[in-house]
Amino acid sequence: MKRFFLVCSFFCTQVVFASGDLPSWQDTKTKAALITFVEKTTKQGSADYIPPEERIAVFDNDGTLWSEQPSYVQLTFAIDRVKVLAPQHPDWLNKQPFKAVLEGDRKALSEAGDKGLIEIIAATHAGMSPEEFHQIVLDWMKTARHPKTGRPYPEMVYQPMLEVLSYLRKHGYKTFIVSGGGVEFMRPWTEAVYGIPPEQVIGSSVKTQLIVKDDKVNLQRLAEVNFINDKEGKPLAINQHIGRRPVIAFGNSDGDLQMLQWTSASRKPSLGVIIHHTDAEREVAYDRQSHIGKLDQALNLSKKQGWLVVDMKTDWKTVFPK
Amino acid sequence: MKRFFLVCSFFCTQVVFASGDLPSWQDTKTKAALITFVEKTTKQGSADYIPPEERIAVFDNDGTLWSEQPSYVQLTFAIDRVKVLAPQHPDWLNKQPFKAVLEGDRKALSEAGDKGLIEIIAATHAGMSPEEFHQIVLDWMKTARHPKTGRPYPEMVYQPMLEVLSYLRKHGYKTFIVSGGGVEFMRPWTEAVYGIPPEQVIGSSVKTQLIVKDDKVNLQRLAEVNFINDKEGKPLAINQHIGRRPVIAFGNSDGDLQMLQWTSASRKPSLGVIIHHTDAEREVAYDRQSHIGKLDQALNLSKKQGWLVVDMKTDWKTVFPK
Repeated sequence: MKRFFLVCSFFCTQVVFASGDLPSWQDTKTKAALITFVEKTTKQGSADYIPPEERIAVFDNDGTLWSEQPSYVQLTFAIDRVKVLAPQHPDWLNKQPFKAVLEGDRKALSEAGDKGLIEIIAATHAGMSPEEFHQIVLDWMKTARHPKTGRPYPEMVYQPMLEVLSYLRKHGYKTFIVSGGGVEFMRPWTEAVYGIPPEQVIGSSVKTQLIVKDDKVNLQRLAEVNFINDKEGKPLAINQHIGRRPVIAFGNSDGDLQMLQWTSASRKPSLGVIIHHTDAEREVAYDRQSHIGKLDQALNLSKKQGWLVVDMKTDWKTVFPK
Repeated sequence: MKRFFLVCSFFCTQVVFASGDLPSWQDTKTKAALITFVEKTTKQGSADYIPPEERIAVFDNDGTLWSEQPSYVQLTFAIDRVKVLAPQHPDWLNKQPFKAVLEGDRKALSEAGDKGLIEIIAATHAGMSPEEFHQIVLDWMKTARHPKTGRPYPEMVYQPMLEVLSYLRKHGYKTFIVSGGGVEFMRPWTEAVYGIPPEQVIGSSVKTQLIVKDDKVNLQRLAEVNFINDKEGKPLAINQHIGRRPVIAFGNSDGDLQMLQWTSASRKPSLGVIIHHTDAEREVAYDRQSHIGKLDQALNLSKKQGWLVVDMKTDWKTVFPK
């Protein structure tokens, strides 16, 4: 009888895991490791207990919370903006990289490289107030569709990751986005889509200036990069913005390497997680050779650092929300 | 009888104000205006209703939440650090501005100006990790005493402002500090003293670099200014950090002018408040001529902008916690 109760209490707990938290995750070692870490850091009296105010969890966005293939969503937005703004810029018809965008010339666009990309972002993301840009992004998000699935972009988020976000918040973790994407491109919709308010979004940014008129102050976005929140930039920006070292970090590419390393170098319990894109059927399979979301060095270090590597194909029951 | 009830309901409401919220505020027009604004922006169905996620309230720190006289607390901290570190820097005995600090030569220190001040901050605030600096600040806060009152600095905060912070939070406002002070000088203690967590503190900062060793990443503070969060810097930093225009802004000096102007230029209801240091007896009376917390231009604009000017002498029952 005693043994029965022991067995029962063990299985009952297992059943609660499976049917309750993280329902889109397969019952693999990965899910178990995730739950074990959260439980040991939040259960009063646990040796690894972390007080609520220190429970900081950071998430890369592109490729970690939503799909970054076949191209970054923000780049698609910028290209759409070039087309919308073209009538006001007749010179773009003969000026790269705008000519390439307007003619759909992928080769020329690719040749324009990072410099061309920054020119496109600058020309399409500047010259308005943050509030106006906010509205432009919201309007675009409503109508734009993913080129392969035809779904709106807010439906190209990963269902298992939405569940991780709310599972962590339920356990007192404060969730932040730490993305190479533009902070003001993300903030208009992250609250509705991820439950993450604008002040918990950290990203790349353009410079902004004050416009003073009749004793009133407003802001205007400039066509100049302020900060690139990638690689080394991520730990620096987290320290600047949050002022605490994260307990949990999720990423999917070498752009997240330093954020994962800084998190794991903590003296307190920590968890680094890599989302590995292994599912060619339900999404896209890519890692070491990809020019978007290249995952090479971080994958090499994952074993030594004890990072959890999520195999999307075997660890996730579903990829996108139904 | 009807009239009696009307009178009663009027006075009953008044009594609730007086004995409940903001008990250290005199029952003046200032307190009434503050409460009226908060009620109209938080009551469902009100024409001026602001949804909870948009309720952002920002507060300057020095002179708004705690005393900045006779000198900025962070400057006192830096001077104490010069004395502690002096044995490791024998050259400081003959090198300004350190010589002035070690000899207590106020005149020479004052002559060193802003440049000298930055040298002192750089020499005492850099060369360690953010975690080590955090501990140094906490240790100092425990033992340091205000030169005039002999009280620990966390007791040099304004009791009426502590009440405003918790009153606003009770009404769904998220409270942020936006100070010219060093962000990492404030973060170690703002949660305990003001109930404001580190990630809701915006301030000036030094540059920080990554230290990579054995695949581990840590951070180190550098003796170089990253950002000065004053004047024009305040609206820019709020936009960068919070991503929303504040609904309520509290300041006390011309350093807060642009933050107040940006808040008041909102299309939504907004409230700007200036703490006017009028109480020579219980604190220090200063404004237009002061070299610390100079309040001149903002006071001139207060009427036109509709800012609430708090007269510390007549609006506050008590200044410091008992």
